[in-house]
Amino acid sequence: MSDNTTKNTTSQAANAWLDEIKFDDQGLIPAIAQEHASGQVLMVAWMNQAALQATVASGQAVYYSRSRQRLWHKGEQSGHVQQVHSIRLDCDGDVILLQVTQVGKLACHTGRVSCFFRELQHPDGQAAWTVVNPVIKDPKDIYGK
Amino acid sequence: MSDNTTKNTTSQAANAWLDEIKFDDQGLIPAIAQEHASGQVLMVAWMNQAALQATVASGQAVYYSRSRQRLWHKGEQSGHVQQVHSIRLDCDGDVILLQVTQVGKLACHTGRVSCFFRELQHPDGQAAWTVVNPVIKDPKDIYGK
Repeated sequence: MSDNTTKNTTSQAANAWLDEIKFDDQGLIPAIAQEHASGQVLMVAWMNQAALQATVASGQAVYYSRSRQRLWHKGEQSGHVQQVHSIRLDCDGDVILLQVTQVGKLACHTGRVSCFFRELQHPDGQAAWTVVNPVIKDPKDIYGK
Repeated sequence: MSDNTTKNTTSQAANAWLDEIKFDDQGLIPAIAQEHASGQVLMVAWMNQAALQATVASGQAVYYSRSRQRLWHKGEQSGHVQQVHSIRLDCDGDVILLQVTQVGKLACHTGRVSCFFRELQHPDGQAAWTVVNPVIKDPKDIYGK
């Protein structure tokens, strides 16, 4: 076996875990970030293969921004990075679940702990999305805009 | 204002909450089911507008099965329905979060509590998805196959 063959075989084995993931036709998979200590679901973003590899390598959540079409190291601007405790994959292989510690306690760009701050309520018998979690920090003070 | 106009206006107001949801180009939105008591993330499935309306109306999770191309009342075969405590929407309006009580304590078709039973581990320095949660009940005994 030549050196190159050995390297290729090793590389294939090293990437076998990636082959078990079903990326969609855009090469993306949704990733849920859940606060490790509280169990609160913080946000959902997307990863491509490079984002997932960067997450594993750095121990911090790296997503793929569909709007900016580039890797997005969560907290790169705000400092609110996510320290990754574990990475799970669901039975279908098409959703990632990250257990994280959210630095700064703010995952949402609106300045809230979680992006899931609206709840369906029926105050007058009619369904409406109602904001149930407060803004902790003004986004202007987070992003300096 | 005619009776029909009144009805249409009322109907529009009643469905305003649906207009805030960004369904994808297939008319679908991903929905996370989280166990209300423990915070454990159980599964992710898809909903179309009809599935979401059926979930609200019934108080039990109803998804849209992409493989079967029909509404899927979770637990319709196994009896493992999900009683819905709350329905949340994220800041982008493109992910739903359900807080549920999972009847039978088994959300996964593999007979496990959660679909997220594989964790990325590095036992010998090489990343691999490792099963970290046991099968609680044989699927044959759940689905009678």
